[in-house]
Amino acid sequence: MGSIATNVAELDASKFNITRSTNLRDVPLPGSPEELSHSYCTDHMVTVRWTVNNGWETPEVKPYQNLSVPPTASCLHYATECFEGMKVYRGYDGKLRLFRPDLNGQRLNTSSQRSSLPGFKADEVKKLVAKLMEIDGPRWLPRDRPGSFLYIRPTVIGNGPHLGVQVPKEALLFIIAVPWPDFTKMKKEGETVSKGLKLFASSPDSIRAWPGGFGWAKLGANYGPSLQSHGKAQAMGFDQILWLFGEDRQVTEAGASNFFIIWHNADTGRLELVTAPLESQLILPGVTRRSVLELARERLSENFVGKLAPLQVVERTLTISEIEKAAQEGRIVESFVSGTAYFITPVAMIRNNDQDISTLGKDGEPAGYAAQIKSWLEAIMYGKEEHDWAYPVEEEQ
Amino acid sequence: MGSIATNVAELDASKFNITRSTNLRDVPLPGSPEELSHSYCTDHMVTVRWTVNNGWETPEVKPYQNLSVPPTASCLHYATECFEGMKVYRGYDGKLRLFRPDLNGQRLNTSSQRSSLPGFKADEVKKLVAKLMEIDGPRWLPRDRPGSFLYIRPTVIGNGPHLGVQVPKEALLFIIAVPWPDFTKMKKEGETVSKGLKLFASSPDSIRAWPGGFGWAKLGANYGPSLQSHGKAQAMGFDQILWLFGEDRQVTEAGASNFFIIWHNADTGRLELVTAPLESQLILPGVTRRSVLELARERLSENFVGKLAPLQVVERTLTISEIEKAAQEGRIVESFVSGTAYFITPVAMIRNNDQDISTLGKDGEPAGYAAQIKSWLEAIMYGKEEHDWAYPVEEEQ
Repeated sequence: MGSIATNVAELDASKFNITRSTNLRDVPLPGSPEELSHSYCTDHMVTVRWTVNNGWETPEVKPYQNLSVPPTASCLHYATECFEGMKVYRGYDGKLRLFRPDLNGQRLNTSSQRSSLPGFKADEVKKLVAKLMEIDGPRWLPRDRPGSFLYIRPTVIGNGPHLGVQVPKEALLFIIAVPWPDFTKMKKEGETVSKGLKLFASSPDSIRAWPGGFGWAKLGANYGPSLQSHGKAQAMGFDQILWLFGEDRQVTEAGASNFFIIWHNADTGRLELVTAPLESQLILPGVTRRSVLELARERLSENFVGKLAPLQVVERTLTISEIEKAAQEGRIVESFVSGTAYFITPVAMIRNNDQDISTLGKDGEPAGYAAQIKSWLEAIMYGKEEHDWAYPVEEEQ
Repeated sequence: MGSIATNVAELDASKFNITRSTNLRDVPLPGSPEELSHSYCTDHMVTVRWTVNNGWETPEVKPYQNLSVPPTASCLHYATECFEGMKVYRGYDGKLRLFRPDLNGQRLNTSSQRSSLPGFKADEVKKLVAKLMEIDGPRWLPRDRPGSFLYIRPTVIGNGPHLGVQVPKEALLFIIAVPWPDFTKMKKEGETVSKGLKLFASSPDSIRAWPGGFGWAKLGANYGPSLQSHGKAQAMGFDQILWLFGEDRQVTEAGASNFFIIWHNADTGRLELVTAPLESQLILPGVTRRSVLELARERLSENFVGKLAPLQVVERTLTISEIEKAAQEGRIVESFVSGTAYFITPVAMIRNNDQDISTLGKDGEPAGYAAQIKSWLEAIMYGKEEHDWAYPVEEEQ
C-alpha cells in the first residue's frame, strides 16, 4: 500500500548518478512562445526508480528526455500518479530559493501513498529539487533577471509493466523544471486593466470531490475529470471553475487554487478572511493557502497595516448563497485565490447559475489585502526578507 | 472538450500503416509465469495519433514496444486516460470472435470525451481490434486451443507535451493484446474447492464514486485511488472490494465487476435477480452486466431452465443491510459478479464491518444461475451458438 518497507532502500538524495547534457538549449525569454508552451523544460531532469523488491534506487540527474513507458504501465490505465507544483525563485540578492519545499515533500509523500505508490522520506524531495537547480539554475534563471522563477514539477507514477488492477510494483519519481508565464502579470487580449479572475461556479451535475474521496491529495485523478467543466468555463471567457459541493452549495476551491473572501460578518460586522476548512477533506491543503493564513493571522489580525484594517481569519464552511447575500448587502471587501500557478490573484466576479456576483470591494476594486499578502510572500521568495520559509539553493559556479 | 470537430480527420480504420515485427516472441502456455505477469503482450500493437489541429491520423500496426512519453504529458499528471477491457475468443469451430465490441467502442468514446480526450466514430474501434487480431490471432490463439482467449486493452491517453492544466491538444489511442489467466478456472493456494469470491465491503471513509462524479465512465481516475482499499482487502485474503455508497450503504459495484444477487423478495417471496441501477451514475455500465440482464430477461424470466426456477430481473438501489437481512432469513439463492476480467464468478461471502454474510444458497452452494448464464455466454463467445453478439475476426492465413 505504498508504505515504507523496512528491508528496502529508502529515498536518499545524498548520492546521485549525474549525466550532463551535451546539447544545452536556448533559455526562452519571458513571454516567448517557448515559455507560453508550458512544456519547454530545462536541460536536465531528476529520476528515481523504485521497485517493490529493492526500494528506491540511486537518484539520477540526466538530460531532459522522453520517458520510455510500457503500454501496460499502471499510470496509463489506472491513474497511479500524483504530483507537486512548486517554484524556484531568483532573488534580488542574486540567490536561488525554494519556498517551503518541506511542505511539498510531505504532501507528495501523502499523495503517493494515497495512490498506492511508494512512500519516502519527505525531506529528500527538496534535496532532489535543489540538485536539479544547482545544475540548471545558473543558466535558466540568470542572475540578471532577479524576480523571476521556474515552475518545478515533482511527479510520481506507476510505470512498471503490469496490466492487472493492483498496487504498482514499480514506480518512478521524476522532477522537471519549466519556464512558466507569470499569470499575475498577464492580461487577457483586449483587456486594459484586469481587476481579477472570473470564476464560474460548478453545477450539481459536476462535482470535483466528495467526503471519503481524494480531493485532499494531489492526485492526477482530481484533474483530468475536471477538465471538461474547466474547458467549458474557459470557452465562455472564465478563468477557472469555482467548485461547489452539496445541497447547500458549499464553496470548496477554485480548481488549481484555494479560494478566499474578505467580508464583514453578516451578524457582527467583524472583518473576516474566510476560506474553506481542511477537515471536510474536500479541498487541497495548499502550501500558499497555509502561508496566506499564517501571514494573515500573524500580521493582519491586530493592527492596521497601512490603510488595511485588521481582520480575523476564519476557516469554515461557506456557501455561495452567503457570498451572494454579502454582495447584495455590500459587505464584500475583497476576494482572491491562492496557489503555486496563480500565486495570489484577486477574484473580480463569480457566475452562479445565471447570476453574476461581484466580489470586488465597494469601489469596484480589490481592497489591497491580496496585494499586501502577495508582497510579503514575494519578499520572502525573492530574498528581500530573511525568513525560514525560504530554502536556499547553492548553485554550481 | 473532446467533441468531434467537423474540419479535422475522423478515426478511420479502413486504412493502416503496417510495420511487421521481425522478432516474433514465444507464445506463453496457459498458467505460465509469462501469462500470470499480465504484461506479456502479443507481437504487435495498434496506435492512432490525434491532434487538435488535424484530428485522427492513419492507424498504425507496429511491433509491440514502449511508448515514448514526454515528461510533461497530460496523462502522467492529470489522469487524462481511459480504457476498455475486452477479449478475443478462439471458438470451437476454429474461428476468432469478439463479444459485443460495439458496446466497448461506444463506451470508450464516452469515456474519452468525459476525460476531455477526443471523440471518434465508435464503430471504428472494433475494426482496429480486429486488424490486430487478424495479424496476431493465428499465432497467439492457436486453433488447437479452442476455448481460449486473449485480453484486449484499447486505451486513450493525453500524451502531448503540455504541462498546463487544460484540455489535451494531443492524444494517442492504442490497443494491446495480452494472454490473461482465466480467473474462473484458478484456485487459491491451499483451496480445494472455491465456492466463490470473498468480498470486503468498503467503509464510509473510502468511496469509489459519487453523484456528479465519473464512476459511470471507464476512466483511469476510478482505479488508482481505489487500489489502496483493494490492496488492504487482498492482504486480508479477500478478492475484491464491494463498494458501498451513502448513509444507507448502497451496494454499487465490486471494483472491477458488477454485483448481482438472487433472492426471494422480502415482501412477496418472488424470486429476483437484483443489481444496482445505472441511473445513479455510480457504477460502470458493464458489457457483461448488460448481457447478463438481457439473457436473464429473455431466458430465465418465464419458464424453468433445468432445475432453475424463473426469476424477475430488477435494477434498483439495494443496500448491504437488505443483503444481511436476506441472509439471516435464508432468502439468498445465489450471488455473483460479472465483468470482462472476472467474467461470471459466484460470490461466497461479504464481510461488512466485522460481520460475515454468506451469499451462497441454502445448501451452501451457488444455485446454478451464474453457471447457466456463463454457459450461455460462452456458447456465444466460442461459437457453439450463432448469435449477433459475436463479431467474427478474419485472420491472415
